[in-house]
Formats: sequence, structure tokens, C-alpha cells
Amino acid sequence: MSKSTGSCQGFLHHVFDYETPKTLIIPSIRVGFVFRFTQFLVLLYVVGYVCVVQKAYQETDSVISTVTTKVKGFAFTNISDMEPRFWDVVDYNIPPQGDGSFFVLTNVVMTPGQTQSRCAELPNPSTICVDDCDCVEGYNDPRGNGIRTGLCENYSSIVKTCEVLSWCPLEIDTNLPKRALLAEAENFTVLIKNSITYPKFNFHKRNILSHINSTYLKRCEFNRKTDPNCPIFRLKHIVSEAGEDFQDMAVKGGVLGILIDWSCNLDWWARKCYPKYTFRRLDNKHPVNNVAPGYNFRFAKYYRTAEGEEVRTLIKAYGIRFDVIVFGTAGKFGIVPTIVNLGAALSFLSLVPMVADWFMLTCMKKRELYSRQKSTYLVEESEVESASMSTTYGTQ
Amino acid sequence: MSKSTGSCQGFLHHVFDYETPKTLIIPSIRVGFVFRFTQFLVLLYVVGYVCVVQKAYQETDSVISTVTTKVKGFAFTNISDMEPRFWDVVDYNIPPQGDGSFFVLTNVVMTPGQTQSRCAELPNPSTICVDDCDCVEGYNDPRGNGIRTGLCENYSSIVKTCEVLSWCPLEIDTNLPKRALLAEAENFTVLIKNSITYPKFNFHKRNILSHINSTYLKRCEFNRKTDPNCPIFRLKHIVSEAGEDFQDMAVKGGVLGILIDWSCNLDWWARKCYPKYTFRRLDNKHPVNNVAPGYNFRFAKYYRTAEGEEVRTLIKAYGIRFDVIVFGTAGKFGIVPTIVNLGAALSFLSLVPMVADWFMLTCMKKRELYSRQKSTYLVEESEVESASMSTTYGTQ
Amino acid sequence: MSKSTGSCQGFLHHVFDYETPKTLIIPSIRVGFVFRFTQFLVLLYVVGYVCVVQKAYQETDSVISTVTTKVKGFAFTNISDMEPRFWDVVDYNIPPQGDGSFFVLTNVVMTPGQTQSRCAELPNPSTICVDDCDCVEGYNDPRGNGIRTGLCENYSSIVKTCEVLSWCPLEIDTNLPKRALLAEAENFTVLIKNSITYPKFNFHKRNILSHINSTYLKRCEFNRKTDPNCPIFRLKHIVSEAGEDFQDMAVKGGVLGILIDWSCNLDWWARKCYPKYTFRRLDNKHPVNNVAPGYNFRFAKYYRTAEGEEVRTLIKAYGIRFDVIVFGTAGKFGIVPTIVNLGAALSFLSLVPMVADWFMLTCMKKRELYSRQKSTYLVEESEVESASMSTTYGTQ
Repeated sequence: MSKSTGSCQGFLHHVFDYETPKTLIIPSIRVGFVFRFTQFLVLLYVVGYVCVVQKAYQETDSVISTVTTKVKGFAFTNISDMEPRFWDVVDYNIPPQGDGSFFVLTNVVMTPGQTQSRCAELPNPSTICVDDCDCVEGYNDPRGNGIRTGLCENYSSIVKTCEVLSWCPLEIDTNLPKRALLAEAENFTVLIKNSITYPKFNFHKRNILSHINSTYLKRCEFNRKTDPNCPIFRLKHIVSEAGEDFQDMAVKGGVLGILIDWSCNLDWWARKCYPKYTFRRLDNKHPVNNVAPGYNFRFAKYYRTAEGEEVRTLIKAYGIRFDVIVFGTAGKFGIVPTIVNLGAALSFLSLVPMVADWFMLTCMKKRELYSRQKSTYLVEESEVESASMSTTYGTQ
Repeated sequence: MSKSTGSCQGFLHHVFDYETPKTLIIPSIRVGFVFRFTQFLVLLYVVGYVCVVQKAYQETDSVISTVTTKVKGFAFTNISDMEPRFWDVVDYNIPPQGDGSFFVLTNVVMTPGQTQSRCAELPNPSTICVDDCDCVEGYNDPRGNGIRTGLCENYSSIVKTCEVLSWCPLEIDTNLPKRALLAEAENFTVLIKNSITYPKFNFHKRNILSHINSTYLKRCEFNRKTDPNCPIFRLKHIVSEAGEDFQDMAVKGGVLGILIDWSCNLDWWARKCYPKYTFRRLDNKHPVNNVAPGYNFRFAKYYRTAEGEEVRTLIKAYGIRFDVIVFGTAGKFGIVPTIVNLGAALSFLSLVPMVADWFMLTCMKKRELYSRQKSTYLVEESEVESASMSTTYGTQ
Repeated sequence: MSKSTGSCQGFLHHVFDYETPKTLIIPSIRVGFVFRFTQFLVLLYVVGYVCVVQKAYQETDSVISTVTTKVKGFAFTNISDMEPRFWDVVDYNIPPQGDGSFFVLTNVVMTPGQTQSRCAELPNPSTICVDDCDCVEGYNDPRGNGIRTGLCENYSSIVKTCEVLSWCPLEIDTNLPKRALLAEAENFTVLIKNSITYPKFNFHKRNILSHINSTYLKRCEFNRKTDPNCPIFRLKHIVSEAGEDFQDMAVKGGVLGILIDWSCNLDWWARKCYPKYTFRRLDNKHPVNNVAPGYNFRFAKYYRTAEGEEVRTLIKAYGIRFDVIVFGTAGKFGIVPTIVNLGAALSFLSLVPMVADWFMLTCMKKRELYSRQKSTYLVEESEVESASMSTTYGTQ
């Protein structure tokens, strides 16, 4: 009927006639089974793996954090070539502000009483001289310690070296104490306060968990088994968990990472979101390609003599730098990733019939019969009158 | 014809014969409507929600940034137990370099003239003694202030405590001024320069926007309403926007986050990409589990007496640490996410016919008729001769 | 047969009867070609672009890193208004710890011998006075240098200014040396040690690559062509690669970014994962809106006179702050992104038949014939007896 009508209604038909594929029903358990089973596999994968294991339905955000640290402890040193000295946090903790990266001094080479003056270079092949001719005035040797004055002076009774203009006396850092000066540092403790934010989810949390009371915090000390949530760490414990020996590391220093992992699943109670602490040495230990092993830096305390001359105590500080590295990703249900993953799953479901068809038309006994009834070849006009009659007639 | 031909042509047929599903057209407005309507819903969701709201067609990159800060202002203090003193930025701003995290000293406990010597411990249950027997020589009390010498000395006329070897005189930080020493600090200002990069999009920008001229910068001050793009902040204003009282916070110190959000949509004019400033206190204020409340650290100024003895002024600095935290994600049209999301949408569209079919075969009056014509049961060989004739014949 | 059976078997049939669409095979090369060609295009896009170019099958993780730096070099300055002075790393490198952001002092304004006292303000319109009435006692001018005492003193023989209580003498930073004091700083070198982690893939690496031996490290210097993996950089080289002139930048200072890009594809040998160094100036150079150009900060060295009075040397340090910025994203094959992208591709493949049908039913000569055989109109009950006979009969 719909053939002989006005254009408007024709359009309506065009839009609202529903065109659905003709289908052939095959009452074969085996084919049916293959079909259902493939479907099942796909569903299993999607639900089981993508959703449960990979949580692909979540959108993620990465952590923003701030850290404050406070080191506690003191030590007393009494070695031959230094007067007895008491060290408190102000002496060994540099910088003092206590942010995410703090340094604990464990070994030191002190050169007190340096002034801007002239002195003989430390003897080495390039500095040893016989007379002034060997020393070019104003020459600035990158390997040296100062600007040459052009004179050749006695470094000791047996050797002469070029004189340089520098902070004199020069530092001699070759005889570094074999045993760390502040061996006691291993018993120092550090309190780490870390507060994090996941801006996308407006989620804030601190590593001092709410269920912890201050009396506990006063006496606790981090231990993976007994006190996994105590934010107070004994330096020795940190280093040993990183697989190092504190005394060994203390001699030449090093860099040690305190990694705090805040990865969380915010769909379930966010209170389940705890920090996980791990420790790892971050600098090369004893590799073949180790230039300037360990960790050290120089700083100075500046004084003025009564005559107003500037004097400084040069300190080459060896020690362990602790870097608190906070990382993590929070996941929370998000509509878009969910849709995307469901969509992907669906398109795989749409593959299933192909599989079943292929199975049906190749592996089954009756495949000839199936294919003959499933797909018909196009029938050319000439031959088709009779055949097509029924259909055309049917639609008149 | 294609049946009785050479393998090659047979292959050609196999590849280039186009197999298209036979369809049944159902001239029913209701079914058609259901079909179109479902399609419409899916499209609406995809275009409206995924693309417009969630911008799922964009690929993202997270920000890289550097910050420099410069604090301005000075104060004058004149309290009983300290000589009058003028404070400028060098005195109260630590560290001086002005990077992303700067500290403004607001309250202080000074202990001048400390030397390496011996003095009586501060009295507390564990340090009070009657005679030397109570003080074990060399004992190192973690709660104490030094190494015991083994002597019991007069701390005051009324109490005796164990003598320790330490930096003496010992610091007494119990009588912290109730009103912050540098109360004037609330009027200090800080200039924050922040330059960011989105490496993936090679996009660079600064928080000092190009349309701002220097005369404006000389006099402006950040205000969410009137001057939202001025990079100069008054400390008091920062703290109050974080919901805190400056004078209150200044006494014991704290950590305050200056969060700069650079989230941008780079598809539209990138010049629309502005920083958004928010402020939040990052340390615990008065929770039950508050260990070491506020924020403070100790540092010292080292001197030498005319006799060359080392003397230091110990300073326990209370104050506010401002952490400038820069974060954000930029989105820009990306072909891959677009494809993925369109794909997901399409697979939902492919669901629509199932819905329509289901509706047609269950809710419609004529469902019997529909299903009979839509799907035919397999016809067994034996019975099928006549039926199959036409087709086979048709293709000879 | 399956019609006349028990409900259970009926259910079985419902579940395991396989319903496959009837199809019409069209032996037309052109239609077939259009069909295959469209398929080919989609596949080409998916495999070629999404997988090879965009590596959309990978899941990503962003880098975590720590940096230690060590500056080497010294300089000698001998200018008119300062006594000759030798500068080593301790003097010009601030802070000394050598973390990711280090500052090299290149120019300086020194104000020695400052004490807490009273002196006449620097002359400017707001400070010049005629008599004491012009100076309000206790007034704290934000643009000034101290607290007014209420007196009007001689600043010089020709001009009187208000007296202030401050660190006196006041700093005069107007006559900044036009040529950087430490011009030699351009030859200083810095060793950058950077160790990174991709926690999700548990991948660790250092910028000192394993194949580099220490003898090489002792003498090498970074050069994009000859030594792209040497971690020792000459400051001059860094600055020039950033498109700046060192001497020019040294006068007023600036901030320079050392960007280390660790973007890696971990599917292929991870050893192929090298750091890429780039350099960029991060602060405004000469824009119209330049407030406080360059980079500088003030710090002081505190002394005590024999009388115990506190004296300080105020140092306004101009110089270059080098920020080591580590970024990068590692990609590694991940099952979920792969599935998602394949899914998206598949749903596009499911579009291909629509294209082919559309082409067949619009562009082909025989479209009438095709459409007549492809889609049949619903046949109303009344007329359908005969037609439906065969099917119903066939299934009895």
C-alpha cells in the first residue's frame, strides 16, 4: 500500500518504517552452544577482568602533597683530631626548615680559620714545582684550588708547590674518617607529616590517621608489622629496609628515598585509603661508573676577627639526604570510562555471531543445507518473474 | 553461474561477492518511533554528555611549573624580655632564595650565648636528682637535652638536676609569647611568579598575564573580586581566605597551601587559560591526635668570641610556611580519544535494533505475524526439495 | 517439531536455537569492491595510526625522580669598590645542599657593617623633609626602609631626609655593576645526577648510563652532538642553548630551566630509554609587564663585635637559578587500552556494511532489483495464507 501515497507520507514511511533483518532459526544444540559459549567468554572477560581486576570503569587523578619533617636526637663526638663536641639537630640537620628533603650530617671534614690569603697548593703532578718559572701567574687550574700567584713555595720540607691565592689554609679532604663521625645518627628519629589532596575528587587526607591518638604518637615508632601507620621513623630502620647498612652508608653519605604511595580506590570507603611506605637508595652505590660516590656538599660558617678580617670554617659535610617522595593515583567511578569500556565490550559481542556462523558453515555436517537456506544468490530479472511474483504481488 | 567456474574466479567471487542481510520492512509507526527514539537517546548522550560536558574527545597533559617568590615588608618589635629590634625580610624570611616554599617567621624563642659546656638539666621527673648517684655518667636521655656528666647540680635554689654536657645555657621554650612577636607580619606582601609548561602541547604561560602592565603590578593586590589576576598577595588575606585567623595562626605557626590551578581547555583560545588561586591550611589545627602542633624549626647563628670560642644564638622559629602548589590538566582535541569515544557510542547504536525488535515481538498486537515473517525455521532436506528448487534453480 | 514440546525443552530451544540473519549474495564486483575498500580503510587507520603512531595500546605512568647537583669552579674578583676576593663554590652556590634547584651568584651588592640603629632615609619624594614636622614618628612606609623616628636629618650636605630606625647603613642597590661581578661563572660546570622511577612498571634508571665509565665522566662535558649523555654541563653552554647570553643574563640574574625528558617506550628494550636534555629561560626577559626583572634575593652574614653587638653584612645576590625539571611518561603494553581501542575499531568496521548497502541501493544501475530482493514488505495476514503456507508447513 505504502507505495501509492503522497510524498509527505512517503517521507514519514521512510523515517518510521522499521527495517529488521530476516532471520533463520537453526534448532541445533551444538551451534547454539558455540554461540552462547563465545558470548559467555566475552562477558566473562569484560566483567571479570576489565571491571573487577583493572577497574577500567574509574577515572583517575594524581596526588598533590606537602611534607614537613622534624628530626630528633643528639650525639657526642670525641675523636683525636677534634675537640669533644656535642651535636644537636641544629648542628647536623641542613637545611633546618624541615621540608620534604632533609639532610642528616654523619661525617665531616672541617677546615677552620680559612682566610682570603696565599698558600702553597696541595702537591700533585700538576702543582709541584721547582722554581717560580713553573708557576704561571694568574693561571686558573680547574683541578686546582686557587689562582696562581706565580711563586713556588715550600708546601713541606720535602716538596715545593705553586702558591695560590685562595681561602687558606686549603682543605685536605683525603683523610676522611673511616668510621662515620656521627655514628650515633642511626638512632635519630624523624617525624614525617604528609597531607595530600586529590583535587579532582576534592579528597584530602593526612598520614597521621584520625584513629591515632597523641599518646600513641608520643611513643610509637614505624614498624611494618607492628606499627605500619606510625609516622615516626628511626633512621637506622629506614636505611636497613632499603637494604643498606647505616654505618657503611654514613661514611661517604648517600641519598635515600622515602616513598609514600597514596594509591587509593575512592569508590569504597575512602577511610580505607592509607599511605604505604617504602624505602629505596636513590644514588649509585658501587657501580663501575661511579663519579663522586656518596653524597656530600661544602658549606661554611663565616666569622669576623676583632680586626674585622673575614674568617670562615669550611665544612665538607658527608651525610644522608632523605627525599620524601609522595606519589599515587586515586580511582573513582567515572561515567565516561565506564561507557567507553562497555562500548568496547559490546563491539566484541557483535563479533560473536560471525564466529557462530563460521562454525556453523564449516564444521557442521548439515553446513550445505544451512548455507543454502541462509543465503540466497541474487536472481536476475529475466529468470526471476515467477520467483519475485510472490514478493511483488505481496506488496501490491 | 558462479558455481561452475575456475578456482581463481571462484576466489574472486568469494572476495568480491557482497553478502547483505535480507530485511523485512514493518510499516508500523509505533515500532518505528520506538526505534528512532532509542537512537535519539543514545546520540543525545554521546554528543551532549561525553563530548560537551566531559570533553572526552580531548587528550590531556599535566602541568610542569617553576615558582619564584619575593616577600616584602618589615616590622619593629619592642617587648619586655628582648631589646627593641627591627626586622626586615632577611631576618624573617627563611630560606632567602624565594622558591616555591617560603617561611615567614612570626614568633620566636631566642637563646643567645650558647656554648659547648656543662649545665644543669631542665627540671622534670626524670632529671631531678638528690645526689650524683642519681645521674648515670654518659647516659643519653632521648627526652633530655644532653649527655649526663654524672654530677647533680643546683638548677635553682630549690631544685637540683643532673648536669649535662650540651649547648648551654639550655633553651627554655615553655614561655612562648601568647601574642605573636611579629604580629605585623600580617601586612607583609608576597609576589609570586609562576611560569608553567604543558610539554605535550608545547604550551607556555606565566601567571603575570600579558595584558597586565607594570604600573598596575606596582600598586595592585590580589582580591578575588576586584583583582583576580594580581600576583601580589597580602599574607593576612591569604590566611583569612583559608578560613584561619592570622594572629591565631602566627603564635604556634602552621603550613598554608597556595594552590594554583592551571586547568585549561586549549581547544578554545589558549589566552582564556588563567590561573585560579585557592588557599588551604595544610597542617592539622586542633585535632585530637595532634603531635607537635603548628610549625616551627630551630636554627642558629654561629659566632666566635675574641678568644676564638664558638658561640651560637639558638633560634626556635615559629611561623607560617607557605607552599605554592601548582597543578592542573590541559585538554586538547586528540584523534585517538575521539575515535575511542565515537566507537563506544556506535556500539551502543548497534544495540538499538535489538531494543526495537524486542519491543516489536513482545509489546505489539501483531507480534505473531511479525515474528512469523521475520524468522523462518530451518527446513529439513527431505521436505525442502520443492522449496529449495527455486533458489538452486535460480542460481544455475 | 520444536513447537509441540514440554516447557523445559521449549526453554532449551529458546536458549540454544541459533538465530542467524538470512543474507542475499550480490555477485557484483563494484559493490564488493566498495565493501572491501571501506573495510581496508578502517583497518589501515586502526593498525597504522592508532597502534603504530599513537601507541594507543599502551598504558602510561608518569615519572618520579630525585636530583642531586654539584657545581665546580672558582673565580677571582678585583674591582674598584671591593677588596680583591677569591670566590669558591661555598661562596657563590646557595643553598649548598645541591638539590634540584641551585643558584649561582653572578652579581652582588654588599652592604657591610649593618647594625640596628638610626640613619637618614634614602632621598626620594616621600622621604625628603625640611624639618621634623615632616616626619611622623612611628610611621611605617611600605616603600621605605624602616620605622620613622620623627626626626629630619642630613642625608647629605644638600638634602635632608626623615630618620628611620633600621639596619644602618641602608643598602644602596642603585649602582649595580653593569658588568657581572662573577663573569667567570660562565665557565663553572655542574654535575647533575638524576635517578627516576616509573612505579607502575617498577622501572628504575639513572641519567649516568651504565655504559659510561668513570674515566669518561672525569673529562666529558655535555654537547648535544658529541656527548649527548654526559651529565656534566658548562653553565655558559646551558644558557646559550636556551638562546640567552650568559654575560647579559648574569647582570640582573634570571631563572633557567634544565628540562630532562624521560619519555620512554618500555615495550622495546628499556635500555633504549635515555634522558633528553633541553634548556629554557623560565622568567620574563624584557616584557612590557616586567615587575622586578631578573632574579635576586637578599641574605646576610651575622657577626658579633667584641662588645657583643650584632652586626651583619647584607648581601643582595643577583644570579641565575637553575631549576632541574624532570618530566616524562612511560608507555607499556596494557590489555585494557588495547581492548578498548580494538573495540572502537570494530564498531567502525560494523559501519562498513551500511556504507556498502547505501552505495548498492543508490549508485548502482540494478538498485531496483537489489532492493526488491533484499527487503520485503510485511504481508498482511489476509493475503499471506499461501505465502506463509510453505514456512509454517515447513516447520510442522
